[in-house]
Amino acid sequence: MEKYVYLFHEGNSEMKEILGGKGANLAEMTRIGLPVPYGFTISTKACNAYYEENKSIPASVEAQVLEALNVLEQKMNKKLGSAENPLLVSVRSGAVFSMPGMMDTILNLGMNDETVEGVARLTNNDRFAYDSYRRFIQMFSNVVLNIDVYYFEQFLEETREKKGYQADPEMTAEDWQEVITGYKEIVRKHTRKDFPQEPMEQLFLAINAVFDSWNNQRAIVYRRLNKIPDHLGTAVNIQSMVFGNMGNDSGTGVAFTRNPSTGENKLYGEYLINAQGEDVVAGIRTPQPIATLKEEMPEVFQQFSETCHRLEQHYQDMQDIEFTVERGKLFILQTRTGKRTAAAAIQIAVDMVEEGIIDKKTALLRVDPDQLNQLLHRRIDDSYPRNQLAKGLPASPGAATGSVVFDADEAEECGKDGRKVILVRPETTPDDIHGIIAAQAVVTSRGGMTSHAAVVARGMGKACICGCDSLKIDIKAKQFTVGDKVVKYGDIITIDGSTGEIMLGEIPMIEPALSDEFQLLLSWADQERKIGVRANADNPEDARKAFEFGAGGVGLCRTEHMFMDSKRIPIVQKMILADNYEDRMEALNQLLPMQQGDFEGIFEAMEGNPVTIRLLDPPLHEFLPDKEELLVEVTKLQMNAPFSSELKIKESLLKKVRQLDEFNPMLGHRGCRLGMIYPEIYEMQVKAIFYAAANLADKGMAVKPEIMIPLVGHVNELRKMRKLVIETGEMVMNQTGKEFSYTVGTMIEIPRAALTADLIAEEADFFSFGTNDLTQTTFGFSRDDAEGKFLQSYIEQKVLPENPFAVLDQNGVGMLVEMGVKLGRQTKPGLKTGICGEHGGEKSSIEFCYKTGLDYVSCSPYRVPLARLAAAQATIRNTKEAYTTA
Amino acid sequence: MEKYVYLFHEGNSEMKEILGGKGANLAEMTRIGLPVPYGFTISTKACNAYYEENKSIPASVEAQVLEALNVLEQKMNKKLGSAENPLLVSVRSGAVFSMPGMMDTILNLGMNDETVEGVARLTNNDRFAYDSYRRFIQMFSNVVLNIDVYYFEQFLEETREKKGYQADPEMTAEDWQEVITGYKEIVRKHTRKDFPQEPMEQLFLAINAVFDSWNNQRAIVYRRLNKIPDHLGTAVNIQSMVFGNMGNDSGTGVAFTRNPSTGENKLYGEYLINAQGEDVVAGIRTPQPIATLKEEMPEVFQQFSETCHRLEQHYQDMQDIEFTVERGKLFILQTRTGKRTAAAAIQIAVDMVEEGIIDKKTALLRVDPDQLNQLLHRRIDDSYPRNQLAKGLPASPGAATGSVVFDADEAEECGKDGRKVILVRPETTPDDIHGIIAAQAVVTSRGGMTSHAAVVARGMGKACICGCDSLKIDIKAKQFTVGDKVVKYGDIITIDGSTGEIMLGEIPMIEPALSDEFQLLLSWADQERKIGVRANADNPEDARKAFEFGAGGVGLCRTEHMFMDSKRIPIVQKMILADNYEDRMEALNQLLPMQQGDFEGIFEAMEGNPVTIRLLDPPLHEFLPDKEELLVEVTKLQMNAPFSSELKIKESLLKKVRQLDEFNPMLGHRGCRLGMIYPEIYEMQVKAIFYAAANLADKGMAVKPEIMIPLVGHVNELRKMRKLVIETGEMVMNQTGKEFSYTVGTMIEIPRAALTADLIAEEADFFSFGTNDLTQTTFGFSRDDAEGKFLQSYIEQKVLPENPFAVLDQNGVGMLVEMGVKLGRQTKPGLKTGICGEHGGEKSSIEFCYKTGLDYVSCSPYRVPLARLAAAQATIRNTKEAYTTA
Repeated sequence: MEKYVYLFHEGNSEMKEILGGKGANLAEMTRIGLPVPYGFTISTKACNAYYEENKSIPASVEAQVLEALNVLEQKMNKKLGSAENPLLVSVRSGAVFSMPGMMDTILNLGMNDETVEGVARLTNNDRFAYDSYRRFIQMFSNVVLNIDVYYFEQFLEETREKKGYQADPEMTAEDWQEVITGYKEIVRKHTRKDFPQEPMEQLFLAINAVFDSWNNQRAIVYRRLNKIPDHLGTAVNIQSMVFGNMGNDSGTGVAFTRNPSTGENKLYGEYLINAQGEDVVAGIRTPQPIATLKEEMPEVFQQFSETCHRLEQHYQDMQDIEFTVERGKLFILQTRTGKRTAAAAIQIAVDMVEEGIIDKKTALLRVDPDQLNQLLHRRIDDSYPRNQLAKGLPASPGAATGSVVFDADEAEECGKDGRKVILVRPETTPDDIHGIIAAQAVVTSRGGMTSHAAVVARGMGKACICGCDSLKIDIKAKQFTVGDKVVKYGDIITIDGSTGEIMLGEIPMIEPALSDEFQLLLSWADQERKIGVRANADNPEDARKAFEFGAGGVGLCRTEHMFMDSKRIPIVQKMILADNYEDRMEALNQLLPMQQGDFEGIFEAMEGNPVTIRLLDPPLHEFLPDKEELLVEVTKLQMNAPFSSELKIKESLLKKVRQLDEFNPMLGHRGCRLGMIYPEIYEMQVKAIFYAAANLADKGMAVKPEIMIPLVGHVNELRKMRKLVIETGEMVMNQTGKEFSYTVGTMIEIPRAALTADLIAEEADFFSFGTNDLTQTTFGFSRDDAEGKFLQSYIEQKVLPENPFAVLDQNGVGMLVEMGVKLGRQTKPGLKTGICGEHGGEKSSIEFCYKTGLDYVSCSPYRVPLARLAAAQATIRNTKEAYTTA
Repeated sequence: MEKYVYLFHEGNSEMKEILGGKGANLAEMTRIGLPVPYGFTISTKACNAYYEENKSIPASVEAQVLEALNVLEQKMNKKLGSAENPLLVSVRSGAVFSMPGMMDTILNLGMNDETVEGVARLTNNDRFAYDSYRRFIQMFSNVVLNIDVYYFEQFLEETREKKGYQADPEMTAEDWQEVITGYKEIVRKHTRKDFPQEPMEQLFLAINAVFDSWNNQRAIVYRRLNKIPDHLGTAVNIQSMVFGNMGNDSGTGVAFTRNPSTGENKLYGEYLINAQGEDVVAGIRTPQPIATLKEEMPEVFQQFSETCHRLEQHYQDMQDIEFTVERGKLFILQTRTGKRTAAAAIQIAVDMVEEGIIDKKTALLRVDPDQLNQLLHRRIDDSYPRNQLAKGLPASPGAATGSVVFDADEAEECGKDGRKVILVRPETTPDDIHGIIAAQAVVTSRGGMTSHAAVVARGMGKACICGCDSLKIDIKAKQFTVGDKVVKYGDIITIDGSTGEIMLGEIPMIEPALSDEFQLLLSWADQERKIGVRANADNPEDARKAFEFGAGGVGLCRTEHMFMDSKRIPIVQKMILADNYEDRMEALNQLLPMQQGDFEGIFEAMEGNPVTIRLLDPPLHEFLPDKEELLVEVTKLQMNAPFSSELKIKESLLKKVRQLDEFNPMLGHRGCRLGMIYPEIYEMQVKAIFYAAANLADKGMAVKPEIMIPLVGHVNELRKMRKLVIETGEMVMNQTGKEFSYTVGTMIEIPRAALTADLIAEEADFFSFGTNDLTQTTFGFSRDDAEGKFLQSYIEQKVLPENPFAVLDQNGVGMLVEMGVKLGRQTKPGLKTGICGEHGGEKSSIEFCYKTGLDYVSCSPYRVPLARLAAAQATIRNTKEAYTTA
């Protein structure tokens, strides 16, 4: 005969298809000897049989249920419906895949007018017994009898009001009895029958209800959306209830097998004597630390300790365990993998390897790379409350506290005085750089994740919040307002760049730390990973930081950031505004030694590792004064000083700014299009790189410059620029008499480059996928506009699963990356490929890069540890011999 | 024995591999009985034999050359080296593929100190004879003896100066004799030998030189670049010289077999008695019309007429023929397909079908679609000189003359008075629409091919020049300057929108005409073509025009152009600036009946053909006042009237304009992103379409609206918007009680849409490739910026072969179109696909669309005839049974 019902100890975790997910897990815990409250599972096959018999429970199923119930009663030494020693059970659905919309749980089944008294007697708690009974009536009536829960809540509220109570805890046992009477009346009114008193009838009605819920509307829709087959059916779990409030030999608690905050290998948790789980949550009584259980119930503690140990061994991970002691007997109600802080995750993973519980690969998979950010930036201590004043875009992680200033010069002065300030501006420009350097953090009310402030702050590893448009900044009055709150110059605020939150006043911070365990784990990661990790670094300081964090080179050095230094910007402007070639060359020649110095610093910091240098990328107008400000100045001067020489100068400046102005700068005259029209600019940069290389070669240092041409869309662009690089290289070698090697490659950051990568590869030694811009052009999204205007709504409406600027869009942008790699290697089998967009520091994107066959990812210095770990995880997860734990 | 030398009458056009291209053509003309000057070809095999014998001419080749020369001398009744009756020949190389870098031509070979006197006697022209001799020395010395031409030119110049002459025509026969003496001296100095006087030596040295030139550096590089095999070798053509200046029974001329200007089937050309070809070109004597040859040399004319007829029959096309009469004997020197105007091309093609010379398919291939523009727009009469004042971007074709005005209101007033004006502005905005309507044409100093002025003017079929930055416009002074020229209000200018030229004053125009032959040709095109042609039309007038030009539907109706009407723009602004949903709805409800009226007009004009309507696409700020102007106004008010209510209003307007302002509007909050955030706007538009459909359905008219969602990048966007359309459709059907059918599709205009077309097709009834935007995003080019800043230079530098906004980039953008069609039809095999970018009116792009399997192209109304013809040509060219002329 077909077996339809399984006692918990007859199953195991492999039997999900028959027992459902929940049933299989309960069976597994039972199987390995945990003291799980006894029970059994009615299999999914029974569900299908139920439907085959036109929604009636087949006789054979009924017989097996009764048989299993009988075993259960014997095991528990209780009996369903017994007034003396009543067995109460929970009834839960359990499909193969967890499904919202299906019937979930009925607790305390078996309660009736007689058994409630038995429970009262046994628990020595009338109030508890009657409260449990009325909860059962309410739950059962709702999910089995289909009576809207509204009627019960309405009646309960009326009763409370009549008694003059504020809340349920004031209700007495007698009050609950009154409620029960009322509830039964409601049931009678809606069903024209009495509430079923017969526990066996309750049980089979509940089983029917679980089976029926498999085909309710919500469940059907959910299955269709998630492509779950209709024929799977659901199982039903029947489990005996246990009570921790049956006297001083009973109790309940929650514990972690290790400290979830530090990772220390020591039981961590709390419990209450003679209490129910709800009491722990309610917080009326103060729970005791788990260690004291050793004194109060030494045997139980001993058993619990051993259980914890066994659970860890079995699941090979730190567990979060709910337990109940009923009359001196320990029951495990639930065990699951425990949540933990980043520090704890690392500690536990490393310890467990040392303890021989897991191997290194498993340890690497145990730490979520996203959590690592916590450890690498100073952060707000979460044990203090946050009083959020406003929220903007989390533009650069980290936290900071300081006095508000509204001006870069002021920030610089305060900085000299040693005061900590936060620079608050509508937006920042290259003119504000000295203020950003001096400030602890930057806040802007306009601009997105790629705004000037955001890019500069991220480069410096400084916290930054952008586009916080609820801030109304009044620069003249030196204050900003949020709603009716006014924050003045000098007021202290705290900001969290990882969440975008701004708080009033100071909040304590936690300093970042790179523990020994962390270093150890990362060294394991380096052994496993098959994909390189480099850093985006624009100056020697960032390069040193990146090297310290384990970067194997610089994947992106953005030379324009060197242009934005406040000492250099006037020369850059002179170069841009030059009317003729000679003036432009003069300015360029002034810039050359400065850039050379930067490159030498970066090469030195990288100690012989490759450094990919991207030639000038942004449109030239980014280096000029703001057009609107200039327009206002000119308008004012026209009125106040129409014949002044100042007006003439400003007017002519405005004219040039207008000439360079663009409708869509993102798609305008930038990238290699600059080098194509002004080859002298690129030539200067290449000279600076090669002079630096020659200089260091002279000192016996290994240098590996990789010169990267940005924004190539047609191979002819790269051909011309590559020629310029090679000719400049020959010139410098002849001039200096030094030999140095270098490579020339390109960013793949516009769709056409990916689509024609086979042609472009002919001129490239390497490809670096610039997925920031590639995402912008592939989606047709201007990041600065999209994030402020519609992207948030798209994510909320679930039009897009995630922000594609944070998580690589594998379907669209990813397809171009794959084409780029495939076509490129078709032409040049060994073509080196990498990614240098922000996705290079995001775990799912890193996995994509690994699977696509890229040679390396490059990300900001502070994300290098994350990337090392994520790269190792990607390798382990995708290794051909599917990895299984030892 | 191997045959190495072929007399012209021994070959034909099929023998290119042996005779080379030139030799095969000369043979063909001889074969069909044309009086070509006699000659022979030394085959490519001889060239290979020459190289096999270590660069010496094999004896068998030499023997065959002498034999052929003998035949030639007999035929011509002249003898190489004869003092009485000297034979002069030309020697030309002739490879299978024409190759620059190889030796080209030596004329007058056979000249020496004796034969020159014979020539002088025979031509009765000493000066001519000595001039010819010195030319021969110069040519031969340069290409055969490798003496730099510089020495000869230097000597000639010195001689001229010594004589006090300005130019060669002043040189006498005696002067040329002096030069010849000097030239011989140069040869002696450089070669240490005398100039070869023996004609047979001259001949073989020349043949050697041709063979050697096959392997000179330039020829080798050219072959490598063009993948021409090295073993092909070159042939050598030896042809007797003929002279039209041997007396009054001689002459020379040029004629077309039909009138190249009108196409009339009548000989057209001119000639000179007793003259050389050079004399016709020099223009010293006035040639006579070809018809008079009938009187002067009736027999020659008769023979020439017959030859012309035979040539047309043979080449099946109108020929452009060079001829010479030497002592009453007609020689054809060259025949080639004659260039012709568009009108002539059509006339000739149609006539030749009627004459049975060609079939209809051939006729269709004979007219270049690009030429048709000439016939569809009024244009400047090319017989008048153009005095170009300035040149901008050719933003909308056609020509116009009118008085300059600088203001839309003035343009409107002048228009009412019946005056013709041209509106000149730095740029135009929606506020200028009434002025554009009233003007003959528009000129702007800023903005590109997609600027407001350009788009609006093209839509109206009005001439327009944009981005003419050499125009310095002073609105206040009502004038513009170009360099030092000043053009004031009211001055007359003429503009050519097809070239971008601006001229001072009035120039006569030619009015457009759609001749009967043109209509007939297009009707043949419609029979052949397998791809539909629709028009982009935004209003009933354009739709009528399109229908008249043969459009089979509207492929793109841009609803935003309806928003830009001067009466509507205030309501549109009210809608945009609304603070709440109610105010926005009020404005939308005002717009609804206006849009409905437009749609009804367009549906009516299209008489039941499909009309694709694109819902609102541009970012909302495009409808608002200009930010900079507003900023100036606010700044002024702040100084002059700081407490005025006007300031308050303007400040608040500025704030809103700033809120909507975008960094990169092209990639910003536009297209369906508007409909996603403000569904009520799309709902209003869809209602207007459906009310119009219901209304016309009521009158018994067939209506086929195709609703197009713009800028879709993710299928979820289309899913939501499609749902909105369908729900609105049901609502309107319920409300009106009318049934109407419609489809819902999308633009494929950003790369991600093409890359995920398989997913998007699930929600689309059709795809329309918006290749304007697709080109912008695929290249990462903002058209407005690129065309003004670097695109021109890219084309000049040959980085890009053509402007990708004019000619579809098949390698990059085209790959996305192909993917889009392929993936889309993978999901929906019958998916309707079209193109509605400007490429839909460009011939090579149309051919691409046909080959890619698109169902239709859509272009501006004035390009519909071009597209019909190009579509037919694409079909004929790409039909499987390769089409061969009858």
